[in-house]
Amino acid sequence: MEKKDYSSEALKKHYEWRGKLGITARVPVGSNEELALAYTPGVAAPCLEIQKDVDKSYELTRRWNLALVVTDGSAVLGLGDIGPEAGMPVMEGKCALFKAFGDVDAFPLCLKTKDVEEMAQTIYNISGSFAGINLEDIAAPRCFELEKRLVELCDIPIFHDDQHGTAIVTYAGLLNALKIVNKKIEEVKIVINGAGAAALAIAKLLLAAGAKQISICDSRGLIYEGRVEGMNPYKEEIAKLTNLERQSGSLQDAMVGADVFIGVSVAEAVTQEMVQSMNHNSIIFACANPVPEIYPEEALSAGAKVVATGRSDFPNQINNVLAFPAIFRGAFDCRASEINDEMKLAAARAIAGLVSEAELSPEKIMPEAFDPRIKDTVAKAVVKAAKETGVNRV
Amino acid sequence: MEKKDYSSEALKKHYEWRGKLGITARVPVGSNEELALAYTPGVAAPCLEIQKDVDKSYELTRRWNLALVVTDGSAVLGLGDIGPEAGMPVMEGKCALFKAFGDVDAFPLCLKTKDVEEMAQTIYNISGSFAGINLEDIAAPRCFELEKRLVELCDIPIFHDDQHGTAIVTYAGLLNALKIVNKKIEEVKIVINGAGAAALAIAKLLLAAGAKQISICDSRGLIYEGRVEGMNPYKEEIAKLTNLERQSGSLQDAMVGADVFIGVSVAEAVTQEMVQSMNHNSIIFACANPVPEIYPEEALSAGAKVVATGRSDFPNQINNVLAFPAIFRGAFDCRASEINDEMKLAAARAIAGLVSEAELSPEKIMPEAFDPRIKDTVAKAVVKAAKETGVNRV
Repeated sequence: MEKKDYSSEALKKHYEWRGKLGITARVPVGSNEELALAYTPGVAAPCLEIQKDVDKSYELTRRWNLALVVTDGSAVLGLGDIGPEAGMPVMEGKCALFKAFGDVDAFPLCLKTKDVEEMAQTIYNISGSFAGINLEDIAAPRCFELEKRLVELCDIPIFHDDQHGTAIVTYAGLLNALKIVNKKIEEVKIVINGAGAAALAIAKLLLAAGAKQISICDSRGLIYEGRVEGMNPYKEEIAKLTNLERQSGSLQDAMVGADVFIGVSVAEAVTQEMVQSMNHNSIIFACANPVPEIYPEEALSAGAKVVATGRSDFPNQINNVLAFPAIFRGAFDCRASEINDEMKLAAARAIAGLVSEAELSPEKIMPEAFDPRIKDTVAKAVVKAAKETGVNRV
Repeated sequence: MEKKDYSSEALKKHYEWRGKLGITARVPVGSNEELALAYTPGVAAPCLEIQKDVDKSYELTRRWNLALVVTDGSAVLGLGDIGPEAGMPVMEGKCALFKAFGDVDAFPLCLKTKDVEEMAQTIYNISGSFAGINLEDIAAPRCFELEKRLVELCDIPIFHDDQHGTAIVTYAGLLNALKIVNKKIEEVKIVINGAGAAALAIAKLLLAAGAKQISICDSRGLIYEGRVEGMNPYKEEIAKLTNLERQSGSLQDAMVGADVFIGVSVAEAVTQEMVQSMNHNSIIFACANPVPEIYPEEALSAGAKVVATGRSDFPNQINNVLAFPAIFRGAFDCRASEINDEMKLAAARAIAGLVSEAELSPEKIMPEAFDPRIKDTVAKAVVKAAKETGVNRV
């Protein structure tokens, strides 16, 4: 099954568009009187007000609604390290989604450096203009280090959508899939294929959600504490929390008896035989893009009960757009200082909750990306969780 | 004569506006088909196109029309160092003017550092997202050092409006004032009061325009080569090019026999006696804001022939908005790598040329800020000069 090739039409459109974002003046500046209010001399008054109390920057400028979408262009789509300028069409697209789905003003920047400390310093230096920062398409493990440094430096939310957005929508889908098969997250055996940014974030969020039995495979097979080859500090860290039996072996070995498979790595990594080796009523999230780990009809015919992918042309799309715009909306609405696990879990539950019990079926575990309820429902849940954890500032 | 106080109304408006800029999506993202073109998977095609040829970032993203307006908040309006966040209302206003008067998408950033090298590195790191950079309200001498570093680092125009925009509109006004008094720039004696960013830039542009006799005064009086006290490298540099007779003394001394006074520093620095000591048919540009060096009616009654100020409530406003939006428009239209003296002089001549001979009078040396011809006329002149000096890239 081949996915439609949008390349030539998309390229043509991009040449026509000449940029997917625009900046607009929200105030009139068409007369000397209007200039005197929006610019000099009147503008001195709001400046002095902010000088007295920096928090007023959230009331007297656009800061309250401004997100920075920033990349170094090192892990753009599946294209790898294509450089900062070449990452810009994706960043502009992302910002267009922030606006359309979250009413968030998002501005894209591509950094001409891949040095973590320099990236962190650059982003910190401009962070006073924004209410939150979305890291995008930055290669692992640099993305982990950068996120950590920025959380230390900045007093606004730092969110790496490739990690946290993916984890949130995956958990949302899993919540509904588990309802269908009537299993509990605390009891299921979950296998994650991949050990990059998305995979590790999914594992951590599922642990935070109560999962007890997670195993993670990379290209060398199962990750376990004490494994010597192909490890890094981030795999070491997750190895302490997953695969507690320290099982070794291949992905094939890992999947025997598993309830849930979550793939965020290699296309066609899963065979029908591997699905057949899983527990009864298995759940398959085959999210490699554009070619999934296994196509839905193959997984279903091999016995899987619920199958999701990253694609919009199959049922059950695991799509980050369900999460990031509304999460930022919520974080901005309560001027959150961070987006913590409780807020992420609340967002996932809110997304899952948009599929009613009547609608819920093996082909319907996710709300539609264009469901008009998403923004307000998810944002509200995020605000509530922020307030419960005390990270709101209004 | 008191200027109207806009403070309380402007503050109220700023609370209502909650930001003077917005970011808009210029493309539809309301269906899976539209998402596939503007975002994944279609967006990979323009990304790969830019990877092959970075210049395509000017065709496939908004870069071609994007200006960065950046400050450290160290010299905002007349308010001094009020910090980065507090500078934002001015930066947003500036961006609104870029849009309204130049059709330029301008985005404001306030830097949390005042270290020149760190500022330069930060701006360079994000420069791949923009077609040009406007430095704003950065204190001297840091603004000179930063501009120099950025010109070295970046391949896009670096423009410090407080210097170059001011110099351009001042020269535009002077061109028309000289027509009225029938004097030549090569022959007039010009006194500039102030030795900051604006003053030194005006001096340099007037030298580039052919002026031969310029004297500059700071708070200690005339600057001359060899003066010991109160000098800095920028004053040393300009001292080699001005006041070639190495005259010492006060501003009062400097003005005796002068044809032109240009004030960009201290309010009420000029008395009627000082105007009376000037040459016949003197020209006074009293641009200190909001209180000028001398009020127009005082200067006129003391014998000045042409008086201009920075204020919109007197005739002949020397207003930067006549220059920076259209200059960026022109620079962007030909994808200039820099904004050089020839482009600045061409812009000034184009601005001056918008006042017809029939209109020209001592009360009418500047076009109106809202003259709809400015953008295209000035931009066209800038493009022509860019092409003549070979700094255009399309």
